Amino acid sequence: MTDSERTAKPAASRGGKRERLAAAAAQVFHHQGVEKTTLGDIARAADVPLGNVYYYFKTKDQLVEAALGAHRDQLHAITERLDRIPAPADRLKALIGGWVDQRETAARYGCPFGTLATELDKRDDGLERGAAGVMRALIDWVADQFAQMGRDDARDLAIELVAAYQGMSVLTNTLRDPEVMSTQGRRLAGWIDGLT
Amino acid sequence: MTDSERTAKPAASRGGKRERLAAAAAQVFHHQGVEKTTLGDIARAADVPLGNVYYYFKTKDQLVEAALGAHRDQLHAITERLDRIPAPADRLKALIGGWVDQRETAARYGCPFGTLATELDKRDDGLERGAAGVMRALIDWVADQFAQMGRDDARDLAIELVAAYQGMSVLTNTLRDPEVMSTQGRRLAGWIDGLT
Repeated sequence: MTDSERTAKPAASRGGKRERLAAAAAQVFHHQGVEKTTLGDIARAADVPLGNVYYYFKTKDQLVEAALGAHRDQLHAITERLDRIPAPADRLKALIGGWVDQRETAARYGCPFGTLATELDKRDDGLERGAAGVMRALIDWVADQFAQMGRDDARDLAIELVAAYQGMSVLTNTLRDPEVMSTQGRRLAGWIDGLT
Repeated sequence: MTDSERTAKPAASRGGKRERLAAAAAQVFHHQGVEKTTLGDIARAADVPLGNVYYYFKTKDQLVEAALGAHRDQLHAITERLDRIPAPADRLKALIGGWVDQRETAARYGCPFGTLATELDKRDDGLERGAAGVMRALIDWVADQFAQMGRDDARDLAIELVAAYQGMSVLTNTLRDPEVMSTQGRRLAGWIDGLT
């Protein structure tokens, strides 16, 4: 959902150490999942000495929270950019276009945010609520676009669009087939056109 | 996707120990993910002494394969039951109805098969291909129904339907909201009606 790749590379050239670690955490969780990841993996990806990681984050859970924050910031940056497009339907089609652009990454690792949410959702310790917050922020923004298009059923349509994206990410990933994303992306763009 | 709950409980009353362990593995992976699960967790859920588990399965990966086999068998049992319904559109609506019936479980743990596939998809060691096989079997069966409805675009429609299910499962799970499943299930049933 949020392009953590671009955020994390090159890690050493961006922002403070805390931000670099948060972006690296999002990237490493995307590639190998939370459970398999060690603080050392994230330190290496961020190019920060492991000893320094403990200064900012005492536990892996704190890095999960930071990764969720990085996803939230990235979503905010994306929607802020899309908000400059005049017509709400074009904003939605640009959002879909961004998803399709990431199809090769999705085929290998799935949606950076959706797969993290899925892993956290097995838990019941509060971290999954952070994931729900990011998902809700995306749905709210999409619903706002449908409302601006004059749709009374804006929230249902938003859930349909975000679910379609999450679902096509799961299939693209499981079948290792980026074409699933391209075909479904075209279908969704046509669906948006049909609603205007 | 496949109802591993029903398969696994009561574990002690069903089949041989190998089948009980496979069904218990599918259930425990659904509830807590593969990485967090120990052979001991599965032995307990299957009500089989841990020492006996090693007789059937040397490694957790072998239990992952067995769990994928349990999902495949369960999918086969479901489609065999659905095949007795005369009209293909009604078969698809019954499939959707079965998904919606599992909405409370989906809100807590997501799709039993989709979340397992998502976790395995981070890997690149061959187990993710077993997950792709089960996903493809579902897509093939759904495509066959659309083809019997006379649709030339049966495969694209099948991917759309299975993706919609996987996506609504991710949202239901992340938002912890079974209503997402009910609303989207009604929408999908109406969509099937519109195609006939």
